[in-house]
Amino acid sequence: MAVKRVKVSNNVIRRLPRYLRKLDELSESGVDKISSRQLGEQLGLTSSQVRQDFNCFGEFGQQGYGYNVSALRAQIAGILGMDRGFSAILIGVGNIGRALMENFCFADWGVHLAAAFDVKPALIGTEYKGVRIYDVAELEAYLRAHHVDIAVLTVPKTAAITVTETLTGNGIDAIWNFTNVELTAPNSRTIVENVHFSDSLLSLSYFVAERRDEEAARVAREEK
Amino acid sequence: MAVKRVKVSNNVIRRLPRYLRKLDELSESGVDKISSRQLGEQLGLTSSQVRQDFNCFGEFGQQGYGYNVSALRAQIAGILGMDRGFSAILIGVGNIGRALMENFCFADWGVHLAAAFDVKPALIGTEYKGVRIYDVAELEAYLRAHHVDIAVLTVPKTAAITVTETLTGNGIDAIWNFTNVELTAPNSRTIVENVHFSDSLLSLSYFVAERRDEEAARVAREEK
Repeated sequence: MAVKRVKVSNNVIRRLPRYLRKLDELSESGVDKISSRQLGEQLGLTSSQVRQDFNCFGEFGQQGYGYNVSALRAQIAGILGMDRGFSAILIGVGNIGRALMENFCFADWGVHLAAAFDVKPALIGTEYKGVRIYDVAELEAYLRAHHVDIAVLTVPKTAAITVTETLTGNGIDAIWNFTNVELTAPNSRTIVENVHFSDSLLSLSYFVAERRDEEAARVAREEK
Repeated sequence: MAVKRVKVSNNVIRRLPRYLRKLDELSESGVDKISSRQLGEQLGLTSSQVRQDFNCFGEFGQQGYGYNVSALRAQIAGILGMDRGFSAILIGVGNIGRALMENFCFADWGVHLAAAFDVKPALIGTEYKGVRIYDVAELEAYLRAHHVDIAVLTVPKTAAITVTETLTGNGIDAIWNFTNVELTAPNSRTIVENVHFSDSLLSLSYFVAERRDEEAARVAREEK
């Protein structure tokens, strides 16, 4: 899909997948149109924030009518590149690699998981959830023979840098990084998306701490 | 630590773990003070944004001097509840559960992983990475006997709702949810932090699509 490409802020980009999930939910509940105010309320955003976000990419809604849920969903999916047929490979079929192969449906997000790589002889040559597992030693040859858009990096920390060098040295410019190792070299043209479980746990921890403080304050008030 | 509790926006809360990671990095590199401008630059934020974020919680820096890295780190850790000694249990020792138990250091974030639960007889009664695995059937009794702040939910989708009911029915008010099942009931007092891998992959996909469009535009210009 042709997309109006403008430089939009990282925050806007981060909100797009949330809009997508919400629109899928609405769609499943049979909702077919929604106002920016309603959409914002369900996501904890103001209506003007919602309109501004979508205005980054052109005119989506109709003044006074709101958004058509399925049309908006399609437009956001297009902006997110879900209709590009991106291909991915996964390196490191350990726990987190297997968890992704087993439970994460790449195809739902428009990404084709084409192959996996590992070092364990017992895994090499087998298939897991329909995906062939190759020897990491074959990675370079594979990348020369196949177009790959995204590498999912689920190797142990100790292997992260070496594997990344093989990837970037063979044309990979996008890495979904689960290793917690900082991969971005200064001025690197590699797009790295880091998954930091700790960010998520700490946000939760914040809310728990806030709740405990509120409870303690209530008890203190009642004891007075 | 006593923390000034004010209602701050979700966006500010989400940035706190990123500040923490950056400060840890700076600390490791031997940096002991930093200005809001420098800190902002390294995180893609403006200096006024950085100052505003910290002002939500009181006075952190010193005008014209900047922030002391380790003092700021300690303050943010306190705000995030990392010094509260929160305890957690994990339910579902499958791939993602094992990945967390094996590779994610809960203790680094101030959380003690006290126990795990599963339904598989082969796992029950064993220990994995020093954490005892109990029968899910014992979950209710465990919760009555132990104080638990956070439940890490890594069960299959089909078990998510039932397990959540057992948790919330036995005093658990915070769930770190890896199941992709929507757990939040309207007006529920349970704090749910959802881990959506798709949000992360789609952000990456956005940047790849943008890159491909730029490349295509360059090729088109060169062919003219």
